[in-house]
Amino acid sequence: MLAAPINRLITELSRFPGVGQRTAQRMAFHLLRVSDAEALALAEAIRDVKEQVGECEVCFNLATEPRCRICTDDRRDRHVICVVEDPSDVISLERTNEFNGLYHVLGGALSPIDGVDPEDLHLAELADRAAGPEVREVVVATNATTTGEATALYIADALHERAPGVTVSRLASGLPVGADLEYADEITLGRAMRARRALD
Amino acid sequence: MLAAPINRLITELSRFPGVGQRTAQRMAFHLLRVSDAEALALAEAIRDVKEQVGECEVCFNLATEPRCRICTDDRRDRHVICVVEDPSDVISLERTNEFNGLYHVLGGALSPIDGVDPEDLHLAELADRAAGPEVREVVVATNATTTGEATALYIADALHERAPGVTVSRLASGLPVGADLEYADEITLGRAMRARRALD
Repeated sequence: MLAAPINRLITELSRFPGVGQRTAQRMAFHLLRVSDAEALALAEAIRDVKEQVGECEVCFNLATEPRCRICTDDRRDRHVICVVEDPSDVISLERTNEFNGLYHVLGGALSPIDGVDPEDLHLAELADRAAGPEVREVVVATNATTTGEATALYIADALHERAPGVTVSRLASGLPVGADLEYADEITLGRAMRARRALD
Repeated sequence: MLAAPINRLITELSRFPGVGQRTAQRMAFHLLRVSDAEALALAEAIRDVKEQVGECEVCFNLATEPRCRICTDDRRDRHVICVVEDPSDVISLERTNEFNGLYHVLGGALSPIDGVDPEDLHLAELADRAAGPEVREVVVATNATTTGEATALYIADALHERAPGVTVSRLASGLPVGADLEYADEITLGRAMRARRALD
Protein backbone atom coordinates (compact mmCIF):
# COMPACT_ATOMS: atom_id res chain seq x y z
CA MET A 1 0.00 0.00 0.00
CA LEU A 2 2.95 2.37 0.59
CA ALA A 3 5.22 3.40 -2.27
CA ALA A 4 8.32 1.22 -2.67
CA PRO A 5 10.89 3.83 -1.56
CA ILE A 6 8.94 4.46 1.65
CA ASN A 7 8.72 0.75 2.39
CA ARG A 8 12.43 0.39 1.82
CA LEU A 9 13.14 3.28 4.21
CA ILE A 10 10.90 1.73 6.87
CA THR A 11 12.73 -1.59 6.49
CA GLU A 12 16.11 0.09 6.87
CA LEU A 13 14.99 2.12 9.89
CA SER A 14 13.56 -0.96 11.60
CA ARG A 15 17.07 -2.46 11.73
CA PHE A 16 17.91 -0.11 14.62
CA PRO A 17 17.85 -2.00 17.90
CA GLY A 18 14.56 -1.48 19.73
CA VAL A 19 12.87 0.08 16.69
CA GLY A 20 9.81 -1.89 15.57
CA GLN A 21 7.72 -1.57 12.43
CA ARG A 22 5.51 1.10 13.99
CA THR A 23 8.34 3.32 15.21
CA ALA A 24 10.18 2.91 11.91
CA GLN A 25 7.05 4.06 10.08
CA ARG A 26 6.78 7.11 12.32
CA MET A 27 10.44 7.90 11.68
CA ALA A 28 9.96 7.51 7.92
CA PHE A 29 6.99 9.88 7.93
CA HIS A 30 9.05 12.34 9.93
CA LEU A 31 11.73 12.25 7.22
CA LEU A 32 9.06 12.70 4.55
CA ARG A 33 7.72 15.74 6.40
CA VAL A 34 10.99 17.59 7.04
CA SER A 35 12.87 19.64 4.45
CA ASP A 36 15.12 17.92 1.93
CA ALA A 37 18.08 19.64 3.60
CA GLU A 38 17.33 18.15 7.01
CA ALA A 39 16.74 14.62 5.70
CA LEU A 40 19.82 14.71 3.49
CA ALA A 41 21.93 15.99 6.40
CA LEU A 42 21.16 12.69 8.17
CA ALA A 43 22.01 10.65 5.06
CA GLU A 44 25.26 12.60 4.74
CA ALA A 45 26.11 12.15 8.44
CA ILE A 46 25.70 8.37 8.11
CA ARG A 47 27.94 8.33 5.03
CA ASP A 48 30.59 10.49 6.73
CA VAL A 49 30.70 8.39 9.86
CA LYS A 50 31.22 5.20 7.87
CA GLU A 51 33.89 6.85 5.72
CA GLN A 52 35.79 8.74 8.40
CA VAL A 53 35.51 6.71 11.57
CA GLY A 54 37.64 3.61 12.05
CA GLU A 55 39.38 1.78 14.89
CA CYS A 56 42.37 3.01 16.87
CA GLU A 57 45.32 0.77 15.98
CA VAL A 58 46.33 0.56 19.66
CA CYS A 59 43.13 0.26 21.69
CA PHE A 60 40.41 -0.39 19.04
CA ASN A 61 38.33 2.53 20.28
CA LEU A 62 36.64 4.62 17.58
CA ALA A 63 39.08 6.95 15.86
CA THR A 64 39.23 9.30 12.88
CA GLU A 65 43.05 9.04 12.86
CA PRO A 66 45.22 5.89 13.09
CA ARG A 67 45.26 6.42 16.87
CA CYS A 68 42.33 7.61 18.98
CA ARG A 69 42.17 10.81 20.98
CA ILE A 70 42.74 9.05 24.28
CA CYS A 71 45.79 7.07 23.14
CA THR A 72 47.38 10.25 21.78
CA ASP A 73 46.58 12.37 24.84
CA ASP A 74 49.76 13.05 26.85
CA ARG A 75 47.81 13.77 30.01
CA ARG A 76 46.47 10.21 30.29
CA ASP A 77 48.06 7.79 32.75
CA ARG A 78 49.84 5.12 30.70
CA HIS A 79 50.21 2.77 33.69
CA VAL A 80 46.54 1.70 33.73
CA ILE A 81 44.46 0.11 30.98
CA CYS A 82 40.70 -0.24 31.30
CA VAL A 83 39.24 -3.13 29.25
CA VAL A 84 35.72 -2.70 27.88
CA GLU A 85 33.50 -4.63 25.49
CA ASP A 86 32.36 -1.83 23.17
CA PRO A 87 33.33 1.71 22.17
CA SER A 88 30.14 3.02 23.79
CA ASP A 89 31.46 1.76 27.16
CA VAL A 90 34.40 4.15 26.79
CA ILE A 91 31.94 7.04 26.61
CA SER A 92 30.08 5.82 29.71
CA LEU A 93 33.32 5.56 31.70
CA GLU A 94 34.68 8.89 30.47
CA ARG A 95 31.47 10.52 31.70
CA THR A 96 32.25 9.42 35.27
CA ASN A 97 35.51 11.43 35.34
CA GLU A 98 36.89 8.68 37.59
CA PHE A 99 39.43 7.21 35.19
CA ASN A 100 42.40 8.84 33.58
CA GLY A 101 44.20 5.84 32.08
CA LEU A 102 44.03 4.23 28.65
CA TYR A 103 41.38 1.89 27.27
CA HIS A 104 41.27 -1.38 25.39
CA VAL A 105 38.11 -2.22 23.43
CA LEU A 106 37.60 -5.97 23.04
CA GLY A 107 34.86 -5.77 20.45
CA GLY A 108 32.41 -7.89 22.48
CA ALA A 109 32.49 -10.57 25.17
CA LEU A 110 33.35 -14.26 25.06
CA SER A 111 30.29 -16.32 24.24
CA PRO A 112 31.11 -19.74 22.73
CA ILE A 113 27.39 -20.43 22.31
CA ASP A 114 27.15 -17.42 19.93
CA GLY A 115 30.41 -18.38 18.26
CA VAL A 116 32.49 -15.65 19.95
CA ASP A 117 35.81 -17.27 20.87
CA PRO A 118 38.98 -15.63 22.25
CA GLU A 119 40.43 -15.11 18.77
CA ASP A 120 37.34 -13.10 17.75
CA LEU A 121 38.12 -10.43 20.37
CA HIS A 122 41.16 -8.18 20.73
CA LEU A 123 42.52 -10.33 23.57
CA ALA A 124 45.96 -11.12 22.10
CA GLU A 125 46.55 -7.40 21.60
CA LEU A 126 45.56 -6.77 25.21
CA ALA A 127 48.09 -9.32 26.46
CA ASP A 128 50.78 -7.69 24.31
CA ARG A 129 49.98 -4.26 25.71
CA ALA A 130 49.76 -5.49 29.31
CA ALA A 131 53.17 -7.18 28.93
CA GLY A 132 54.72 -3.84 28.01
CA PRO A 133 57.06 -2.11 30.50
CA GLU A 134 54.72 0.78 31.38
CA VAL A 135 51.56 -1.08 32.44
CA ARG A 136 50.92 -1.68 36.15
CA GLU A 137 47.18 -2.35 36.29
CA VAL A 138 44.45 -3.66 34.00
CA VAL A 139 40.92 -2.76 35.10
CA VAL A 140 38.44 -5.21 33.59
CA ALA A 141 35.25 -3.25 32.93
CA THR A 142 33.32 -5.81 30.88
CA ASN A 143 29.57 -5.95 31.57
CA ALA A 144 28.32 -7.54 34.80
CA THR A 145 26.59 -10.22 32.70
CA THR A 146 27.40 -13.92 32.32
CA THR A 147 29.46 -13.32 29.19
CA GLY A 148 31.12 -10.23 30.66
CA GLU A 149 32.08 -12.12 33.83
CA ALA A 150 33.42 -15.07 31.83
CA THR A 151 35.49 -12.67 29.75
CA ALA A 152 36.86 -11.04 32.92
CA LEU A 153 37.95 -14.42 34.31
CA TYR A 154 39.56 -15.35 31.00
CA ILE A 155 41.50 -12.06 30.98
CA ALA A 156 42.64 -12.51 34.60
CA ASP A 157 43.97 -15.99 33.73
CA ALA A 158 45.64 -14.90 30.49
CA LEU A 159 47.36 -11.89 32.04
CA HIS A 160 48.47 -13.85 35.07
CA GLU A 161 50.56 -15.84 32.60
CA ARG A 162 51.60 -13.17 30.06
CA ALA A 163 52.04 -10.20 32.41
CA PRO A 164 52.55 -11.60 35.92
CA GLY A 165 53.62 -8.24 37.44
CA VAL A 166 50.38 -6.52 36.41
CA THR A 167 47.47 -6.14 38.84
CA VAL A 168 44.17 -7.21 37.27
CA SER A 169 41.14 -5.55 38.88
CA ARG A 170 37.41 -5.60 38.24
CA LEU A 171 34.72 -2.93 38.60
CA ALA A 172 32.94 -3.19 41.98
CA SER A 173 29.60 -4.99 42.18
CA GLY A 174 26.96 -3.66 44.53
CA LEU A 175 23.78 -1.66 44.85
CA PRO A 176 23.29 0.96 42.15
CA VAL A 177 23.12 4.45 43.69
CA GLY A 178 19.51 5.31 44.51
CA ALA A 179 18.41 1.65 44.72
CA ASP A 180 16.03 0.19 47.30
CA LEU A 181 17.19 -2.99 49.04
CA GLU A 182 13.69 -4.32 48.51
CA TYR A 183 14.11 -4.40 44.75
CA ALA A 184 17.73 -5.58 44.60
CA ASP A 185 18.25 -9.16 43.41
CA GLU A 186 19.92 -11.48 45.91
CA ILE A 187 23.15 -11.88 43.93
CA THR A 188 23.72 -8.13 43.78
CA LEU A 189 22.80 -7.75 47.44
CA GLY A 190 25.05 -10.68 48.42
CA ARG A 191 27.98 -9.12 46.59
CA ALA A 192 27.29 -5.76 48.18
CA MET A 193 27.37 -7.45 51.59
CA ARG A 194 30.59 -9.32 50.89
CA ALA A 195 32.31 -6.18 49.57
CA ARG A 196 31.05 -3.94 52.42
CA ARG A 197 33.31 -1.06 53.40
CA ALA A 198 34.07 0.67 56.69
CA LEU A 199 32.47 4.10 57.01
CA ASP A 200 34.99 6.67 58.14
CA MET B 1 34.97 13.71 23.59
CA LEU B 2 33.45 11.93 20.56
CA ALA B 3 34.85 12.48 17.08
CA ALA B 4 33.10 15.24 15.11
CA PRO B 5 31.38 12.98 12.53
CA ILE B 6 29.88 10.85 15.33
CA ASN B 7 28.62 13.93 17.16
CA ARG B 8 27.08 15.22 13.97
CA LEU B 9 25.34 11.89 13.38
CA ILE B 10 23.98 11.89 16.95
CA THR B 11 22.65 15.43 16.45
CA GLU B 12 20.92 14.46 13.21
CA LEU B 13 19.42 11.30 14.73
CA SER B 14 18.12 13.20 17.77
CA ARG B 15 15.88 15.24 15.43
CA PHE B 16 13.53 12.25 15.15
CA PRO B 17 10.45 12.80 17.31
CA GLY B 18 10.79 11.00 20.64
CA VAL B 19 14.49 10.31 20.16
CA GLY B 20 16.62 11.86 22.90
CA GLN B 21 20.36 12.25 23.17
CA ARG B 22 20.78 8.81 24.74
CA THR B 23 18.76 6.93 22.11
CA ALA B 24 20.44 8.88 19.31
CA GLN B 25 23.82 7.83 20.71
CA ARG B 26 22.73 4.19 20.81
CA MET B 27 21.52 4.46 17.22
CA ALA B 28 24.80 6.07 16.12
CA PHE B 29 26.83 3.28 17.73
CA HIS B 30 24.61 0.76 16.03
CA LEU B 31 25.42 2.36 12.66
CA LEU B 32 29.12 2.34 13.55
CA ARG B 33 28.92 -1.36 14.38
CA VAL B 34 27.08 -2.61 11.29
CA SER B 35 28.64 -3.16 7.88
CA ASP B 36 29.21 -0.24 5.53
CA ALA B 37 26.63 -1.78 3.18
CA GLU B 38 23.89 -1.81 5.82
CA ALA B 39 24.55 1.75 7.00
CA LEU B 40 24.78 3.10 3.47
CA ALA B 41 21.54 1.33 2.53
CA LEU B 42 19.81 3.54 5.10
CA ALA B 43 21.51 6.69 3.78
CA GLU B 44 20.46 5.70 0.27
CA ALA B 45 16.87 4.96 1.31
CA ILE B 46 16.59 8.44 2.86
CA ARG B 47 17.94 10.03 -0.30
CA ASP B 48 15.61 8.00 -2.55
CA VAL B 49 12.54 8.83 -0.52
CA LYS B 50 13.27 12.55 -0.68
CA GLU B 51 13.97 12.36 -4.41
CA GLN B 52 11.14 10.08 -5.48
CA VAL B 53 8.25 10.76 -3.15
CA GLY B 54 6.13 13.88 -3.56
CA GLU B 55 2.51 14.89 -3.10
CA CYS B 56 -0.46 13.74 -5.15
CA GLU B 57 -1.71 16.70 -7.17
CA VAL B 58 -5.31 15.82 -6.34
CA CYS B 59 -5.39 14.71 -2.70
CA PHE B 60 -1.88 15.65 -1.39
CA ASN B 61 -1.27 12.11 -0.19
CA LEU B 62 2.27 10.79 -0.72
CA ALA B 63 2.88 9.79 -4.31
CA THR B 64 5.73 8.72 -6.59
CA GLU B 65 3.71 9.77 -9.64
CA PRO B 66 1.75 13.03 -10.20
CA ARG B 67 -1.32 11.23 -8.78
CA CYS B 68 -1.28 8.78 -5.86
CA ARG B 69 -2.24 5.11 -6.02
CA ILE B 70 -5.60 5.71 -4.42
CA CYS B 71 -6.65 8.56 -6.70
CA THR B 72 -5.73 6.49 -9.78
CA ASP B 73 -7.44 3.31 -8.53
CA ASP B 74 -10.65 2.69 -10.52
CA ARG B 75 -12.11 0.48 -7.81
CA ARG B 76 -12.32 3.34 -5.28
CA ASP B 77 -15.65 5.03 -4.65
CA ARG B 78 -15.41 8.55 -6.04
CA HIS B 79 -18.53 9.74 -4.19
CA VAL B 80 -16.86 9.91 -0.77
CA ILE B 81 -13.79 11.89 0.32
CA CYS B 82 -12.17 11.28 3.69
CA VAL B 83 -10.28 14.33 5.02
CA VAL B 84 -7.21 13.65 7.18
CA GLU B 85 -4.45 15.79 8.66
CA ASP B 86 -1.38 13.79 7.58
CA PRO B 87 -0.37 11.12 5.05
CA SER B 88 0.22 8.67 7.93
CA ASP B 89 -3.50 8.93 8.77
CA VAL B 90 -4.27 7.51 5.32
CA ILE B 91 -2.26 4.39 6.23
CA SER B 92 -4.10 4.04 9.55
CA LEU B 93 -7.49 4.28 7.85
CA GLU B 94 -6.53 1.95 4.99
CA ARG B 95 -5.55 -0.67 7.58
CA THR B 96 -9.12 -0.74 8.88
CA ASN B 97 -10.50 -1.90 5.51
CA GLU B 98 -13.62 0.12 6.35
CA PHE B 99 -13.26 2.85 3.75
CA ASN B 100 -13.18 2.56 0.00
CA GLY B 101 -13.47 6.20 -1.05
CA LEU B 102 -10.85 8.83 -1.84
CA TYR B 103 -8.77 10.90 0.58
CA HIS B 104 -7.82 14.52 1.03
CA VAL B 105 -4.70 15.29 3.09
CA LEU B 106 -4.84 18.74 4.68
CA GLY B 107 -1.21 18.87 5.77
CA GLY B 108 -2.02 19.58 9.43
CA ALA B 109 -4.79 21.08 11.50
CA LEU B 110 -5.88 24.67 12.08
CA SER B 111 -4.00 26.18 14.99
CA PRO B 112 -3.83 29.99 14.88
CA ILE B 113 -1.65 29.97 18.02
CA ASP B 114 1.01 28.01 16.09
CA GLY B 115 0.50 30.18 13.01
CA VAL B 116 -1.46 27.54 11.07
CA ASP B 117 -4.27 29.42 9.33
CA PRO B 118 -6.78 28.11 6.72
CA GLU B 119 -4.57 29.17 3.82
CA ASP B 120 -1.70 27.01 5.19
CA LEU B 121 -3.76 23.85 4.72
CA HIS B 122 -5.21 22.31 1.56
CA LEU B 123 -8.70 23.58 2.45
CA ALA B 124 -9.42 25.54 -0.73
CA GLU B 125 -8.59 22.45 -2.79
CA LEU B 126 -10.93 20.40 -0.61
CA ALA B 127 -13.80 22.85 -1.23
CA ASP B 128 -13.12 22.69 -4.98
CA ARG B 129 -13.17 18.90 -4.93
CA ALA B 130 -16.30 18.72 -2.75
CA ALA B 131 -18.09 21.12 -5.10
CA GLY B 132 -17.47 18.73 -8.01
CA PRO B 133 -20.44 16.79 -9.47
CA GLU B 134 -19.38 13.33 -8.18
CA VAL B 135 -18.97 13.98 -4.45
CA ARG B 136 -21.83 13.10 -2.10
CA GLU B 137 -20.11 12.85 1.28
CA VAL B 138 -17.06 14.27 2.99
CA VAL B 139 -15.92 12.30 6.07
CA VAL B 140 -13.85 14.53 8.33
CA ALA B 141 -11.24 12.28 9.98
CA THR B 142 -9.05 14.92 11.59
CA ASN B 143 -7.67 14.01 15.04
CA ALA B 144 -10.00 14.07 18.05
CA THR B 145 -7.87 16.88 19.53
CA THR B 146 -8.70 20.56 20.04
CA THR B 147 -7.08 21.54 16.75
CA GLY B 148 -8.55 18.56 14.90
CA GLU B 149 -12.05 19.38 16.18
CA ALA B 150 -11.67 23.05 15.28
CA THR B 151 -10.58 22.04 11.78
CA ALA B 152 -13.60 19.73 11.46
CA LEU B 153 -15.97 22.57 12.39
CA TYR B 154 -14.26 24.91 9.96
CA ILE B 155 -14.62 22.34 7.16
CA ALA B 156 -18.31 21.74 7.97
CA ASP B 157 -18.96 25.50 7.75
CA ALA B 158 -16.95 25.99 4.58
CA LEU B 159 -18.55 23.05 2.74
CA HIS B 160 -22.02 24.06 3.87
CA GLU B 161 -21.45 27.17 1.78
CA ARG B 162 -19.37 25.85 -1.13
CA ALA B 163 -20.96 22.42 -1.56
CA PRO B 164 -24.41 22.57 0.05
CA GLY B 165 -25.58 19.24 -1.38
CA VAL B 166 -22.71 17.30 0.21
CA THR B 167 -23.12 15.46 3.54
CA VAL B 168 -20.30 16.29 5.96
CA SER B 169 -19.73 13.56 8.56
CA ARG B 170 -17.24 13.04 11.37
CA LEU B 171 -15.61 9.88 12.78
CA ALA B 172 -17.50 8.58 15.81
CA SER B 173 -16.25 9.43 19.29
CA GLY B 174 -16.54 6.78 22.02
CA LEU B 175 -14.72 4.19 24.06
CA PRO B 176 -11.74 2.63 22.32
CA VAL B 177 -12.24 -1.13 21.88
CA GLY B 178 -10.85 -2.97 24.90
CA ALA B 179 -11.13 0.05 27.20
CA ASP B 180 -12.28 -0.03 30.85
CA LEU B 181 -14.95 2.51 31.80
CA GLU B 182 -12.94 3.17 34.94
CA TYR B 183 -10.07 4.65 32.96
CA ALA B 184 -12.10 6.55 30.34
CA ASP B 185 -12.07 10.33 30.67
CA GLU B 186 -15.47 11.92 31.25
CA ILE B 187 -15.63 13.69 27.89
CA THR B 188 -15.07 10.44 25.97
CA LEU B 189 -17.53 8.61 28.21
CA GLY B 190 -20.07 11.43 27.83
CA ARG B 191 -19.82 11.28 24.06
CA ALA B 192 -20.12 7.50 24.11
CA MET B 193 -23.31 7.86 26.16
CA ARG B 194 -24.76 10.52 23.87
CA ALA B 195 -23.98 8.49 20.75
CA ARG B 196 -25.24 5.17 22.19
CA ARG B 197 -26.67 2.70 19.71
CA ALA B 198 -29.45 0.13 19.88
CA LEU B 199 -28.15 -3.44 20.11
CA ASP B 200 -29.88 -5.61 17.54
